[in-house]
This record gives sequence, C-alpha cells and structure tokens, in this order.
Amino acid sequence: MEWREDRLFLLDQTLLPRKVKMAACSSVEDVTDAIRTMVVRGAPAIGIAAAFGIVLGAKASTARNRNELLKDVLDASERIGSARPTAVNLFWALERMKNVLLQNETDNVSLLKDLLLKEAHTILSEDRETCRRIGLHGSALIKEGDGILTHCNAGGLATSGYGTALAAIFAAGEQGKNIKVYVDETRPLLQGSRLTAWELKAAGIDTTIICDNMAGLVLKEGKVNLVITGADRIAGNGDAANKIGTYSLALLAEAHEVPFYVAAPRSTFDMKLQCGDQIPIEQRDPDEVAVFQGKRIVPEGVDVYNPAFDVTPHRLIRGIITEKGVVTPPYEANLAKLFD
Amino acid sequence: MEWREDRLFLLDQTLLPRKVKMAACSSVEDVTDAIRTMVVRGAPAIGIAAAFGIVLGAKASTARNRNELLKDVLDASERIGSARPTAVNLFWALERMKNVLLQNETDNVSLLKDLLLKEAHTILSEDRETCRRIGLHGSALIKEGDGILTHCNAGGLATSGYGTALAAIFAAGEQGKNIKVYVDETRPLLQGSRLTAWELKAAGIDTTIICDNMAGLVLKEGKVNLVITGADRIAGNGDAANKIGTYSLALLAEAHEVPFYVAAPRSTFDMKLQCGDQIPIEQRDPDEVAVFQGKRIVPEGVDVYNPAFDVTPHRLIRGIITEKGVVTPPYEANLAKLFD
Repeated sequence: MEWREDRLFLLDQTLLPRKVKMAACSSVEDVTDAIRTMVVRGAPAIGIAAAFGIVLGAKASTARNRNELLKDVLDASERIGSARPTAVNLFWALERMKNVLLQNETDNVSLLKDLLLKEAHTILSEDRETCRRIGLHGSALIKEGDGILTHCNAGGLATSGYGTALAAIFAAGEQGKNIKVYVDETRPLLQGSRLTAWELKAAGIDTTIICDNMAGLVLKEGKVNLVITGADRIAGNGDAANKIGTYSLALLAEAHEVPFYVAAPRSTFDMKLQCGDQIPIEQRDPDEVAVFQGKRIVPEGVDVYNPAFDVTPHRLIRGIITEKGVVTPPYEANLAKLFD
Repeated sequence: MEWREDRLFLLDQTLLPRKVKMAACSSVEDVTDAIRTMVVRGAPAIGIAAAFGIVLGAKASTARNRNELLKDVLDASERIGSARPTAVNLFWALERMKNVLLQNETDNVSLLKDLLLKEAHTILSEDRETCRRIGLHGSALIKEGDGILTHCNAGGLATSGYGTALAAIFAAGEQGKNIKVYVDETRPLLQGSRLTAWELKAAGIDTTIICDNMAGLVLKEGKVNLVITGADRIAGNGDAANKIGTYSLALLAEAHEVPFYVAAPRSTFDMKLQCGDQIPIEQRDPDEVAVFQGKRIVPEGVDVYNPAFDVTPHRLIRGIITEKGVVTPPYEANLAKLFD
C-alpha cells in the first residue's frame, strides 16, 4: 500500500498469486470499490485504505471552511464505511480522520487537508510498528520445531506490510526457529492458498496448504502445536470475529488440546460491544461459492449460504496477541487494562 | 451405471453438473482408470464397477479351463484393486467374483463367464435393494422440519442409484417430510456442490450449499438437527473412514450436541480390522487442491497435503444405518451380531 502522486496504490489481492498488479485509487468511490471487491482486504489494511480514502474525499472537496469540509468528510466516511460491515478497523480509522477536523479549530481548509494526509500517514506508520510488536510478542509463543496452523490471510497483505498472525510466524522465522506452517486454503476466496502461501514462501518458511476440511486430521496427526489467526473485530469479552471457518478451527483445536491464539492490534477491539453476538456478520454474494474462475460449480437453482465471518467465543481463545503483549483470560478484566 | 452391448456404461461424475455424459468401459484397463480418475466414485458404486470390470477381464480371457480363467480373473482383480485403496467395497466385490469361480467346479469356461456376469448383475441389484432399506431405516431418524447436514456424495451416484446417506434423505422426502438439507461443498473435488446438490435438486429437496468451513457456524446457528454421511470402510469397532473432512464434521457435531450418523451397507464393513487406525488412507495428487479447472491457485513451490479420507472414531458416531437397521453402541458387540 503506497501513497504517491496524490493517489493510493494498492496491490490487487484478487489477482494474486497469478498476477502482481497495483490498482490506483484516485477517489472515494475507487477506495470504496477496492474495499468491497476485496482488492484490499484484512482488517488493518482496510483501515489504512479507508484513511487515505478520506484524504481523497477531502482533496476533491470544494469546502471553504472546516464545517463544510467536515460535512464532505462525513459523507465520504459513510460511503467508505458501507463497503464492509464486520472489520472494525475501518470505522476506527474513519473516526480518527474525523477527529482531526474536530480537534483543529481552523478554517484553513488547505491546512486541514494537509493534517488529514498526515494522519493517514500516521495510521500507516503506526500499523507498521504495531505489527512488528505483535510479531515480537507472538513469536515468543512459538518454539523451535513447532507446527503452526493458520486460516485465511493475516499477513503483510492484510496490514501495512508485516501482518498480525503471520507477523508472529515471520518473527519466529527471523529468529532462526525451524517451523512448519499449515495453511487452510480458506474457501470461498482462497486467501490461504493464494495470499498466505505466497507471503510465507517469499519469507522462506516451510509451508503446506490444506483444504479447510483437513484441519481436523492434521490436528489429530499431531502436526500442529498451536493455531494462530487474525481477527476482524473483537468484543470487550474477547469474543473474536474472523474469516468464516475460524470458529470451526477453534473448536477442532480445542478437541485436540492445541492452543488457539488470535493476533490483532488494539484497533481491532470494539470495547463498546459486550460480546460477539453483537458483531455484524457480512453476508456476501453466493456466486463467490457457486462460481469459480468464471465457471459455475453449484447447479443453478440450488441455494448457497455465504457468511464472510464467524465469531469464536473467548472460551476457545488461549490468548490474544496485541502490540502491548499477550492478553489472557479473564478477558473482560485484562482487556479493560489494555485500554486503560 | 448400466451393462449393455457387453460394455459397462458409467455416468462420468468428473463432468457433472455441467455435462451429463456416459463413459463406456470395454476393458479391465478402462474400469481401473474410471475408478482411479473418479469417473465412478462412492464405495458401493466402485464395488459394482469392479464386478463388471472382472466380467470384462473374463470376457477378454482366452482361458480353456477354470484354473486359467481364475488366473486371469485374479490378475484383473489385482489391477482393479490397485486403483483405490480405502473403500473396502472394491475388494469385497472382487472377492465375490473370485468366489464364483472357486465355488463352481466346471471347466466350461463359457458357463463360468456367464456366471460371472450373473454375479455382477446380482451385486448391482442387491445394492439397489440395500440402498432402499438403508433409506427406510435412515428416514426413521429424520423428523418433520429437520435440518440435515451431509458431506461429500453418498447418493445415487455413489451407489447403484439411490444412495446411502442420501437414501435416508430421499426416503424422508418421499414420506412428505419437510426437510432442509445443508451440503458441504467438499473440497477438493466438490462432490457436495457438484453431485449431491444436483441429486437433491432433482429430487425436489430444499438444498443449501455451504463451504466446508461454514459447518461450525451452521451448527451453532441451530440449523442442523442431525448429520448423516456415508462411509468407505468401517472397522469392527465402528471407526469409519469417509471422505476427508468427515472427522472434522463429526467433532463439530459433537461440540454442538448434534447427532452424527453414518449410513453404509454391510459390504462397507471390514470386520477383519479391529480399529480405524488399520484402514489405509489414500493420498491423492496435490494438484487436485493446487489447480482448479486448469488454473493454479497455490503458488508453485508450496507443498500441498491431500489425503482423500479420514477416520471418524466410533465414539463420535451416534448410529450406523445399515440395510438391517441402525446399529448403535456398543459397536463391537452389536456389529458382531450384524454379521452373525
């Protein structure tokens, strides 16, 4: 993800790994579409893209004072926020951008636009540092020779560039630990086989793709010492929404007494929510399941259910790896401390 | 599946649902290839195809007496048996064909060939009756309004034409029960979305496809009252090998206190085996996972693990639906009675 020549450049994740192509966004509409169609995806990355989307909205604004600019920014926020409902980083970033205007009492619109751009860059660089710290804390959980199972993509592509769940794995690799990573392919959009495998291979980490339904067998065979995934929104009690299939995986890990960890920055927590039931779950186009690379695989006239996320209850989560350290149960008390 | 003009005609299941095309087998080699490449699949269907494969082997034989014919039949058996190691029906059917020769002490080769053809037809028609009975016993477990979850294809396509797990569902439908069936798409070869959905739709049953990793959520949402799958080989203690993902599904059902049933004819039991650990698990080509409809979805150089089956331990199985009724725990004792 890169800001240059007044445009946001995104690595188009829908084309990976077969094509490495940058998509340029020059308007709020472009950014909204990129988030909706998953050109950019992953909770932190969506937040950063949203922030630059606000910059683009402000840039196009003809506002003559702060109030007019605020109105245009709120309008852009609403459009960008509509793209995907589950990942809270999106709304967190939009809130931070709005606060730039609320906290700077000037009608110098040009200055305000500069401050918005500065805030977007800050969000981006903070995410880099956050991911490094998550990697550091997470890697301490990984021992020499461990087998690790992950789901979807919580890597560099899902963030500013180092990842959350994968940050822990990258850091363990950098520390010279020999590890073996199993990756759920992650139907329907195959972020595991397309994106995570691509990132891990580039990092020189021993990687094996499995179909999602093989996780139980791989756990039973003793190949996995810990499971780490990312998250899209975490409630105040530790319940964590993440890519569909994460809940199944957490149950399978529990059945085999393998610890299940979630890695996420503090921006992924929605402390207003008491529990995971309150997290909105995005339903996506049935054709993501029914059609593959242009070919229909489900007979016409058969229904398809395609929830994009599920919620893993906190009782299944051994710890949540944040930039401030690993939070363990009891979550309500310990998460409250995290946000003190 | 049909025998006509001295050839075995199989509905090519690799092309469904996009193309309905019969494949004709006129040699042992044709049948072996059809089993290996999954033109025909499903434990009972493989058994029937194998029996007709022996007929084709006998037909091509130039044997002048029973011993010579037996030698040719055993040779054909070995070739066909090498195609897929897990489903025991294959070996059960080959054994039955061999026994035709062992039990008829004549050197009238032409008569023996006729008897072999007759035995293959008997296996086919017995399977029809067996499936009907499985459907009858299984449907008694299904109540009005039930949600049912199944995995892979244990339908007409996997048998002589009515199925095992799906037989129970078809029969419940024929009895006028309103039911709703959720079907795991079943990666990597998508037998759920391609085959099971196609069969259920043709039977007018309310069908919804889910990705395999959605099963946990669907169970949590209370949409499923029972899970029914088929089996490829069942050990003497009730441990059941079935399509990869069945074990995960059984664990998820247990976690939600939803009963998990296996439907299988007696020919799927391998009473020589004390437990499921002894069942050989076929490993298939990694490209089944890595390549989809000619396009690579896993980056080159990344490993893929592709076991075709897993074993569900008997403790997770509420009952095994056979043509003789539903066998419940304790399995060792009750299965011994089944084979009395």
